[in-house]
Amino acid sequence: MKVVKTIAEMKAARRGLKGTVGFVPTMGYLHEGHLSLVRKSVEENDYTAVSIFVNPTQFGPGEDLEKYPHDLERDLDLLAPIKTDIVFVPTRDEIYPPGYMTWVTVEKLTDPLEGSRRPGHFRGVTTVVNKLFNIVEPTRSYFGQKDAQQALVLTKMALDLNMPLEVITLPTVREPDGLAMSSRNVYLSSEQRKQATAISRSLILARDMFDRGERNTAAIKGKMAELIEKEPLAKIDYISVAGAYDLGEQDIIKTPTLISMVVKFGKTRLLDNIILK
Amino acid sequence: MKVVKTIAEMKAARRGLKGTVGFVPTMGYLHEGHLSLVRKSVEENDYTAVSIFVNPTQFGPGEDLEKYPHDLERDLDLLAPIKTDIVFVPTRDEIYPPGYMTWVTVEKLTDPLEGSRRPGHFRGVTTVVNKLFNIVEPTRSYFGQKDAQQALVLTKMALDLNMPLEVITLPTVREPDGLAMSSRNVYLSSEQRKQATAISRSLILARDMFDRGERNTAAIKGKMAELIEKEPLAKIDYISVAGAYDLGEQDIIKTPTLISMVVKFGKTRLLDNIILK
Repeated sequence: MKVVKTIAEMKAARRGLKGTVGFVPTMGYLHEGHLSLVRKSVEENDYTAVSIFVNPTQFGPGEDLEKYPHDLERDLDLLAPIKTDIVFVPTRDEIYPPGYMTWVTVEKLTDPLEGSRRPGHFRGVTTVVNKLFNIVEPTRSYFGQKDAQQALVLTKMALDLNMPLEVITLPTVREPDGLAMSSRNVYLSSEQRKQATAISRSLILARDMFDRGERNTAAIKGKMAELIEKEPLAKIDYISVAGAYDLGEQDIIKTPTLISMVVKFGKTRLLDNIILK
Repeated sequence: MKVVKTIAEMKAARRGLKGTVGFVPTMGYLHEGHLSLVRKSVEENDYTAVSIFVNPTQFGPGEDLEKYPHDLERDLDLLAPIKTDIVFVPTRDEIYPPGYMTWVTVEKLTDPLEGSRRPGHFRGVTTVVNKLFNIVEPTRSYFGQKDAQQALVLTKMALDLNMPLEVITLPTVREPDGLAMSSRNVYLSSEQRKQATAISRSLILARDMFDRGERNTAAIKGKMAELIEKEPLAKIDYISVAGAYDLGEQDIIKTPTLISMVVKFGKTRLLDNIILK
């Protein structure tokens, strides 16, 4: 496994690879969710590259940029045994040198949900991923369904800009008790951690209601909120029932539908979602 | 010479090319300026692709999108003998399908000059060229110095986004009497056409003053304006003396300096510039 730090080194390493290249962009502090993406990439491609970069432009003022968890040695120990070929770990100045001034934006899809809560967030995500795609030149790239809107926005970016690669979204990986894996889960106290299972339980409840024929989203959202509000430390940021491709809110479910939500525990925002087909 | 109309055909044709690929994006109605770019590309690369696409997103309301001159047969007749390999002629719907929503923007450099006169113009240019770069995947791309700000903005876009290609800017090609070649020159009446030589004459005057030691831009601009205002049909839109890389206006010339200008004849805006080194 080769660890490279500069764009020039990454491009040189890439030129040495003849065959298909899978790519998993991450912000590090890897968990089983990331590793499932890397394993799929290794399975589907001749080579696999992973980037680790805590992208400052996708964090807003007052967000957790400076305290975002990191442990590069641990990350590399997790990546080596699953046959990662290249790990790209650039500095902030390497990605955004002085005088940087170019941005990639996806409109409309970035307006609701996380876009409305985190102004500028998706502009940071699309810009850095566009850059990483140009640097790594992958055949396929892999993202987790846990960040559903991000996956949709990046798929749209690659499609709209005719990028010569495939964007693949893979299922959310969960802890045994159902909590969606996230690097931010380490922010939770043990009591918050216990109560956080309400999130996935509310999504299962929603799916059960849908399976029993319920199509009224107000009824579903009401029952989900009721379940979550039983946990005293949980604060619902939003529960959304929206078209899975256009993210338009639905009063009556018309599949495919994305049920997505953010629940806050203290300052920690936990995202989760399911798709109804 | 292969003429392709869809993105899928262009990508398929590109996959068949092993070696370096030069690319000249154009809006058609080709003149010797375009052809000089194509010849340089043929000289420097194994293969050369040219695109012809009148990009609607770089035209503002009330601009000349619908009357922009076009003559595809003539363009193809000009390209075939100089060894163009592929001509990509997409439709508007192919480039901007329904639901299109992704944009590439370069900040700061797009604020002054043409950016201030044509809001949204450069966003259209950077977006379409980004897309064309992703479709054609050239080794090198060629632009004319006549559109100095465009060349600078596209160079910056490719650099900032780490695009795997080189952006090359080549000298302005001029008519025997000095007028910079432009597809829009056909809009000029014969009287306007005669008076339009004042533009290049004013740039030569500026260079002469600089060569004789003048560094005060107000003095230079004053003499340029005086020369142009002798032509009754000419209306100065702007004369700018700015840093050649940052486009910041200069009171005292500090090379490299871009002297750029727009003179209007009726509705026709004619651009020209020189660089002082």
